[in-house]
Amino acid sequence: MIGVVYMYGKLVKPQAMDTAMAFHRFHKELPFTAAEYGRRLAQTRAAMDRAGLDALLITDPSNMAWLTGYDGWSFYVHQGVVIQHDFDPVWWGRRQDSNGAVRTVWMADERVWGYADSFVQSTECHPMDDLAERLVYIGLERARLGVEMENYYYSAKAHSALSAAMPKATLVDATAMVNWERGIKSDEEILFMRRAAAISEKIIDGLVERVEPGIPKNEIVAGVYRDALHGIDGHWGDYPAIVPLLPSGSDAAAPHLTWDGRPFANGEATFFEISGCYRRYHAPFCRTIFLGQPDDTILRAEAALVEGLEAGLDVARPGARASDIAAALAAPLDRAGIARSARCGYPIGLSYPPDWGERTISLRAEDETVLQAGMTFHFMPGLWMEDWGLEITESILIRDNGPAETFCNRPRKLYVKP
Amino acid sequence: MIGVVYMYGKLVKPQAMDTAMAFHRFHKELPFTAAEYGRRLAQTRAAMDRAGLDALLITDPSNMAWLTGYDGWSFYVHQGVVIQHDFDPVWWGRRQDSNGAVRTVWMADERVWGYADSFVQSTECHPMDDLAERLVYIGLERARLGVEMENYYYSAKAHSALSAAMPKATLVDATAMVNWERGIKSDEEILFMRRAAAISEKIIDGLVERVEPGIPKNEIVAGVYRDALHGIDGHWGDYPAIVPLLPSGSDAAAPHLTWDGRPFANGEATFFEISGCYRRYHAPFCRTIFLGQPDDTILRAEAALVEGLEAGLDVARPGARASDIAAALAAPLDRAGIARSARCGYPIGLSYPPDWGERTISLRAEDETVLQAGMTFHFMPGLWMEDWGLEITESILIRDNGPAETFCNRPRKLYVKP
Repeated sequence: MIGVVYMYGKLVKPQAMDTAMAFHRFHKELPFTAAEYGRRLAQTRAAMDRAGLDALLITDPSNMAWLTGYDGWSFYVHQGVVIQHDFDPVWWGRRQDSNGAVRTVWMADERVWGYADSFVQSTECHPMDDLAERLVYIGLERARLGVEMENYYYSAKAHSALSAAMPKATLVDATAMVNWERGIKSDEEILFMRRAAAISEKIIDGLVERVEPGIPKNEIVAGVYRDALHGIDGHWGDYPAIVPLLPSGSDAAAPHLTWDGRPFANGEATFFEISGCYRRYHAPFCRTIFLGQPDDTILRAEAALVEGLEAGLDVARPGARASDIAAALAAPLDRAGIARSARCGYPIGLSYPPDWGERTISLRAEDETVLQAGMTFHFMPGLWMEDWGLEITESILIRDNGPAETFCNRPRKLYVKP
Repeated sequence: MIGVVYMYGKLVKPQAMDTAMAFHRFHKELPFTAAEYGRRLAQTRAAMDRAGLDALLITDPSNMAWLTGYDGWSFYVHQGVVIQHDFDPVWWGRRQDSNGAVRTVWMADERVWGYADSFVQSTECHPMDDLAERLVYIGLERARLGVEMENYYYSAKAHSALSAAMPKATLVDATAMVNWERGIKSDEEILFMRRAAAISEKIIDGLVERVEPGIPKNEIVAGVYRDALHGIDGHWGDYPAIVPLLPSGSDAAAPHLTWDGRPFANGEATFFEISGCYRRYHAPFCRTIFLGQPDDTILRAEAALVEGLEAGLDVARPGARASDIAAALAAPLDRAGIARSARCGYPIGLSYPPDWGERTISLRAEDETVLQAGMTFHFMPGLWMEDWGLEITESILIRDNGPAETFCNRPRKLYVKP
């Protein structure tokens, strides 16, 4: 503050940075090593190279965090990270959020650019006008610039504003380019997911203990948050990218209902879709609790589902395809006469709301992606039938050899509390 | 289930509906009366009329819920509500989520349309292809169709897919058209906001009681969630659209940092930005707690800020302008030598992540919108300085006469715990 050159918010011509020499005003506790960020950036640049991109504008907060360490609930305004081949990444966002960026990104402070508050939710101008001016200034006027066309945080309007403000540039759809690079997890990432999984186990244990007839749902959710946020083994808990989902009885036919104040009731199944979160890494985990005596329909479904999960885990090995998991799951369900059309899983890892999936692979018949060691999925064969639902799921890691490892280790069954 | 015509997921030619006669498979507990939904729909249709729209595609989950009652965490896939002049609204989304829609929207079940799961996160096809086919089928091939260009849930790709699939239609930017109609709250809505505000007060009371040096932040956040979800006076608590924000010391310069596992420390101010939520309605409320003895800088800022808040509340009357509130706040801050460039508030009400604002009016010098009775704002003059921050804010209601009413009633001050 006193006497330092306070550059962010100002246009600064970028130079090739010696990061070790770079200026940082704040002590930072980055979640990952410099080597890990280096790997991520190198992979991303190689992908850009394959696509012939001069630069890449990242607006997915998960991709921003994965590449730079940026962490903050600021994604409700326009922001992004610009990746080039020869310069360190740039964080760009609202000026007041640049205060958060200089505290969380690994890049030097001058690689953090803030735009004026008058751009925020204005009908007169758009934050992309500011970004375009900066990109032109640093020589990207005629660039082939990748943008994430299919992302919550790159609106139709953002694209039209950026296109209009950079008429000589070529905007190329680079949706999921970075997401694909995130697919194979490093050891550092797997450690974080194991911590998230330990929190997930604790949440489910608490639910099995506490859910009883007459207890209102909102009180049970408060317990989920307590377990989620207290964390485990001295590791604090972060907020999950999706709130707990816990529909009961007939409502369990609907996969994405949240909660209300009604009490749990005897004779109903409730599925609990939750995830522990450790520094934005997730390990989603679902179990279903039946209060009372389940009928044959749900018990037969449980048996078929567990058989399908085990078959799926067994084929989930390097060299197999995403569709093989779906096929292994489908066979016992088909034999039990259970029609299921939804995909049965998706990759997981670092994420921000509104989704904890990576939005690349889908575990379904149409997806022929070859599995590789280090990939992580939520194997999620939820059954959402006409008037009941059942979720028994596993977050899994594809290993070098053998069947997939489950991140959580809890009985793979319908929990019945008579 | 047995013998009923199960129509959703199927293309059904719409007819003018007599809603009273319409078929509903499920008992629904809608948050609002039929008259209230009728008012909202009529206002929206009038706005469409003024803009010359034949139909309006709503993708903002807050607007979807406001118009139809739909509630679910399904906005991470493409979905929307189609408003026409002569037919009841249509809910359109992923087929598995249509199970949630028939349980939460006021329209008849045949006004709920589901698309096949193979569209989800596919690179071969886009959900908007499905929607376009349906819109053409019901006669909107050449329509002037409003779309929410500037919205998290209407991506650049969604717009390009819909445009390509409906080449004869005219897509018109209708960003915030519905949001503007939400500005003046009904008595039913104000009741919900009062309940949210009572929860906000409870959260802040709990923080003032529990925050002490040495207590880890994540544990304090668990307490915030407990108070938020337990609710108050028998009214259950919902999840807020933004997670609690609580940066301390120098980090409080950054408005949108979340939490970690570090303990609160003596000699530091921490601001708490939270909101109670009742059935998706919010009443954001911020207070700052100083542990130890605050220095003169922050005490002077507190005095100026409280004076500015009181001046702002006093001018916040029908007929005044948004900019008048900003000007009233700015005067004492200027006198205290505090430079503040960010807007100082925004409208609030019903919301889903990632934002609890309505994204219409901004309380700032450039905004000349005339205030009207029934408008509700988060009057939010956060101070985010170089190495400290201070938030003392109020959620307010513009009354017929006199200064604005604050939804929460707690001392408007810096809380000091020596």
